[in-house]
Amino acid sequence: MLTLHDNLGSGNAYKVRLILSHLSKPFRRIEYDVTTGETRTPAFLGINPNGRIPTLVFEDGRVLVESNAILFYLATDTEYLPDDAFVRAQALQWMFFEQYSHESFIAVARYWRHFIWDEVAASPERMQTLNEKMEKGRNALAVMDAHLKDNPFFVGSSYSVADIALYAYTHVADEGGFDLTPYRHIRDWLARVAEQPGHVSITKSEFES
Amino acid sequence: MLTLHDNLGSGNAYKVRLILSHLSKPFRRIEYDVTTGETRTPAFLGINPNGRIPTLVFEDGRVLVESNAILFYLATDTEYLPDDAFVRAQALQWMFFEQYSHESFIAVARYWRHFIWDEVAASPERMQTLNEKMEKGRNALAVMDAHLKDNPFFVGSSYSVADIALYAYTHVADEGGFDLTPYRHIRDWLARVAEQPGHVSITKSEFES
Repeated sequence: MLTLHDNLGSGNAYKVRLILSHLSKPFRRIEYDVTTGETRTPAFLGINPNGRIPTLVFEDGRVLVESNAILFYLATDTEYLPDDAFVRAQALQWMFFEQYSHESFIAVARYWRHFIWDEVAASPERMQTLNEKMEKGRNALAVMDAHLKDNPFFVGSSYSVADIALYAYTHVADEGGFDLTPYRHIRDWLARVAEQPGHVSITKSEFES
Repeated sequence: MLTLHDNLGSGNAYKVRLILSHLSKPFRRIEYDVTTGETRTPAFLGINPNGRIPTLVFEDGRVLVESNAILFYLATDTEYLPDDAFVRAQALQWMFFEQYSHESFIAVARYWRHFIWDEVAASPERMQTLNEKMEKGRNALAVMDAHLKDNPFFVGSSYSVADIALYAYTHVADEGGFDLTPYRHIRDWLARVAEQPGHVSITKSEFES
């Protein structure tokens, strides 16, 4: 059985739980507290030298890290990865956009507000950085909303790994202080994603049975 | 002919020039000054709504952005993209590592020191942020060096898109204030990359003929 080194609060880890659920693949979860250094122990660094969850370990011991690389691999030869080479590259384009222009602002704002707020609020410098991240996060949301105005999903005409990657932190962006009200196309798309067969919520923790 | 919306100082854009050179594909370059907002004009945002170079435009008008997605697409069905699905996922793993844990520290430190130093040096907050980025950048270099201790290239046993992605900003890390002397395996790997057929330097600007 697959082993997912996991954290229920992490949108990056949720991406992996979501695709595994779509694919009806059983897996066991090992939960880590990322706020107390549990992913920086020598034992965990032996599994992932970059010290991050999600980390997926296969039955034969092979290890894959980076949420979007895991998504791409698990989706290979399934309906969740586009067949056409150019559309597949467009999916990767949105997945790199997600990590560089979206996650680093929206996920970090959420983490600061939702998980370590007291520490952030006590620092004027971090509050200013938070405001800068909020502005860049809103820019990412605007890029997404404009694209979704004319497209039901991010690439091709159906739900794919690109949607899973972008859904993970967008659907909890309110926890980072983002108001999604102005982004009507994003809100409609969030509803379409949640209707997909096998969809599970970010809080679902039982998967083995 | 392909059109690359480009910037000679950008490692992300260099990745695209490098793979096109390996593949002996002619292309024309349009140079943008990223420090003066040339990639934020309405005309350019019409091509790439996220306002970034590199942006690649194909003869039929299709557009692809995000350097590593472009690399992946151009390398499809060539020796630069691994055939095996798991090895290909490992290449993507390193490419996502590059954008999230390497580029955002090493490339940004280089940009700050090399292109907008006066502005950064005048701000104690930005100098502190720079020091934090340097520390995280050194962490990325340590992860790479440990991996290269036992591997000639990042995935499989040959040069691939993963090496191109990581070479781009690592080989100019000194311009960001990083001393590569302690990273012997990285230095040996940089030399192996520079020996690949079709290798070009980041400063080469003439490609059309």
